[in-house]
Amino acid sequence: MSKIMPISGFPEWSPANRVVEQYFLDRIRRTFELHGFASLETRAVEPLDTLLSKGETSKEVYLLRRLQADADDPRGASDAQLGLHFDLTVPFARYVVENAGKLQFPFRRYQIQKVWRGERPQEGRYREFYQCDIDIVDRDTLPAHYEAEIPLVIGDVFAGLPLPKATIQVNNRKILEGFYRGLGIADPMETMRIVDKLDRIGPAGVLAELVAGGVTEAQAKACLALAEISTADGSFADEVAKLGVTDPLLEEGLAELLAVVETAAAHSPRLCRAELKIARGLDYYTGTVYETSLAGYERFGSVCSGGRYDNLASSGSDRFPGVGISIGLSRLLGVMFGQGALSASRGVPTCVLVALTADSDRPAAMRTAAALRARGIAVEISPSAAKFGKQIRYAERRGIPFVWFSGPEGESVKDIRSGDQVGADAAAWTPPAEDLNPTVSGPIG
Amino acid sequence: MSKIMPISGFPEWSPANRVVEQYFLDRIRRTFELHGFASLETRAVEPLDTLLSKGETSKEVYLLRRLQADADDPRGASDAQLGLHFDLTVPFARYVVENAGKLQFPFRRYQIQKVWRGERPQEGRYREFYQCDIDIVDRDTLPAHYEAEIPLVIGDVFAGLPLPKATIQVNNRKILEGFYRGLGIADPMETMRIVDKLDRIGPAGVLAELVAGGVTEAQAKACLALAEISTADGSFADEVAKLGVTDPLLEEGLAELLAVVETAAAHSPRLCRAELKIARGLDYYTGTVYETSLAGYERFGSVCSGGRYDNLASSGSDRFPGVGISIGLSRLLGVMFGQGALSASRGVPTCVLVALTADSDRPAAMRTAAALRARGIAVEISPSAAKFGKQIRYAERRGIPFVWFSGPEGESVKDIRSGDQVGADAAAWTPPAEDLNPTVSGPIG
Repeated sequence: MSKIMPISGFPEWSPANRVVEQYFLDRIRRTFELHGFASLETRAVEPLDTLLSKGETSKEVYLLRRLQADADDPRGASDAQLGLHFDLTVPFARYVVENAGKLQFPFRRYQIQKVWRGERPQEGRYREFYQCDIDIVDRDTLPAHYEAEIPLVIGDVFAGLPLPKATIQVNNRKILEGFYRGLGIADPMETMRIVDKLDRIGPAGVLAELVAGGVTEAQAKACLALAEISTADGSFADEVAKLGVTDPLLEEGLAELLAVVETAAAHSPRLCRAELKIARGLDYYTGTVYETSLAGYERFGSVCSGGRYDNLASSGSDRFPGVGISIGLSRLLGVMFGQGALSASRGVPTCVLVALTADSDRPAAMRTAAALRARGIAVEISPSAAKFGKQIRYAERRGIPFVWFSGPEGESVKDIRSGDQVGADAAAWTPPAEDLNPTVSGPIG
Repeated sequence: MSKIMPISGFPEWSPANRVVEQYFLDRIRRTFELHGFASLETRAVEPLDTLLSKGETSKEVYLLRRLQADADDPRGASDAQLGLHFDLTVPFARYVVENAGKLQFPFRRYQIQKVWRGERPQEGRYREFYQCDIDIVDRDTLPAHYEAEIPLVIGDVFAGLPLPKATIQVNNRKILEGFYRGLGIADPMETMRIVDKLDRIGPAGVLAELVAGGVTEAQAKACLALAEISTADGSFADEVAKLGVTDPLLEEGLAELLAVVETAAAHSPRLCRAELKIARGLDYYTGTVYETSLAGYERFGSVCSGGRYDNLASSGSDRFPGVGISIGLSRLLGVMFGQGALSASRGVPTCVLVALTADSDRPAAMRTAAALRARGIAVEISPSAAKFGKQIRYAERRGIPFVWFSGPEGESVKDIRSGDQVGADAAAWTPPAEDLNPTVSGPIG
């Protein structure tokens, strides 16, 4: 086996960090289920034309080719048109259209899978990562109350994780588009794309790009004034009004954003902010958009983003408007691991190591292990009847908290951290709850 | 979005079947953890030379290519040498070598991920599927007791799943190789590959192929006689002795197989059989090999296979012998779904639908939902304040068992299957345990 080395952009966690990841996956999934989202997994591949049908990520697609396609299968060439999915929204929209006749609408699903993007290696961005998505799609029309529900689900998710306080920043693209139109700007979509760069290139950079694109300086300054509005309550509407722009789409967007912010404030105070600079890069959003920042980690960008899309899933005259959001789990964990901010109490599930006095004890040790496992306690048996000191070090190196001994005087279990050893019966002994399974600790928000 | 259709070989389960799959994944994982296996996930891609370094599956590899590789990145061509993994053993061996300095040996890990094989579409085989693997690797030497442990773990897994009785068929390649050598056959590996086809081409076919390959008819008949040996206990050794072939490697293999079969018999009667026709196609096995059949489903082949490999992971003078086994979960579920043999009680996690008397009730309904969720009950709120009959049908169509009502006379909850309706308090009411989460039923073994 030659050239054993990491591949840039394809992270592999250590067993201890994998414990943290699995803990996050379990908590996220459980919260999604408590809110009535059904699990879905779609295939990893989509036809290239599906992948290219929306948005600006086409250049990041990985295409597949069968190694032996040319040699043994003239039809293998068709595989060249399959690519790995780069997000879970486009495959979900395809799944909804394909299975519309079998699904119940509104359809609430969660989807937790890896996605792949053929980023340039030198950018240091992940090329394989987990996304955790929820979406609600309906047939023909989608009631606005779902746009207020999505951030509350995400608020529950983050409240259940050992992370700093999460803030969901909400905006509505109708506000941006309507405001730009009301200003007399000819290409509001292009303006949105430039304003979306605000955090990267700053106000002066945005101003310059807007003016270079044919927007007047007065219009550009008004766009920046709109982007500066940030409120924890419904007062953003007053601040927009002060800018003196009127437009029917703007009014519609303001009313929708007000409903989202006020619903959030009523059910989860301090969760959401109206943040009028949020635009989201993807083309397919048509209304509410979300980004999420963690206190103290704002510079790493949004860890959970999404929005409403009215035109992503359609088939002939059938339309399936939806709203959804995606937690970028691998990216979030990569940042937290990089800061040393999350850790697991141990990297193995094992709670008890059964020690061996002699190799001939192995059958008895297997019965002890089975009795403990039957009560939900994770157990390994010592690899060999080495000296007890060596067997204890085996447990220590792995973080296994307890070692089980059998001797002429009966059975006993030792907490190898404290050294306490007590008589014990495999049919009855139970470890302290905090030692039963690995635990995860981090900066609680 | 054009050409919306399934892609052959890439299964996507319905929400209800996905409930079954998730149930299986959870139970398998939990049993692996109870036996002290740590979770690991490796990247989906490996360098092509890693994928091609072992075995005969090279033609089934999917290679990756960045869509824009030629246009924007001269180094993108290197991605052409990345392929999707076709199993979890080869990536695990690579991971062990790459991280040997950081791992504790013996290293016990489980790995549950999708794998991809570029099979010809017309064969009707899956091209994307879940495998659930456990392996134990050690440095330099691996004690034989691990070969007896692996089938006991798998026995626990299958005992916890709603499936027919599982039987693990065990053999040892040293028996086959030693016996063939003892017979005077020059190429035992080629003989093994031909005998491995026994179930597909029958004894006459194997005989013909062996003779065509230069083996005498007497030798070929002895090979077939060996392959016919199948015992539930250690008596296979006597039956082999009757064939009158002696060889040191044969004796070694018989002793190893005896240990596996007798350990299994002592701890899990009826779990294992010595089945001397089992050879496994992959080149990398060097000792014990396993296959698993389900009672009544034998014709669908092995659902869980593996073995011992002494040379898969090595780096310079470091060797990491291992033993492992893999449950082919997607294939198993595909067979069971195809037979209508497994089903979920509902396709949504939701236990309670909170009905709305008026749209203005939504905030109160959200508080009711939050109170129920805080106690682990999955809840959705009705999409709209439609007539109660319509809201109940919404629940019925999804299999949601309970609908929650608020009215002037207080709150109540209705079991829509029985029609029973009782007064209830969201801070205290609990559904019957069997209704809390979806349940899975099948042919218990």
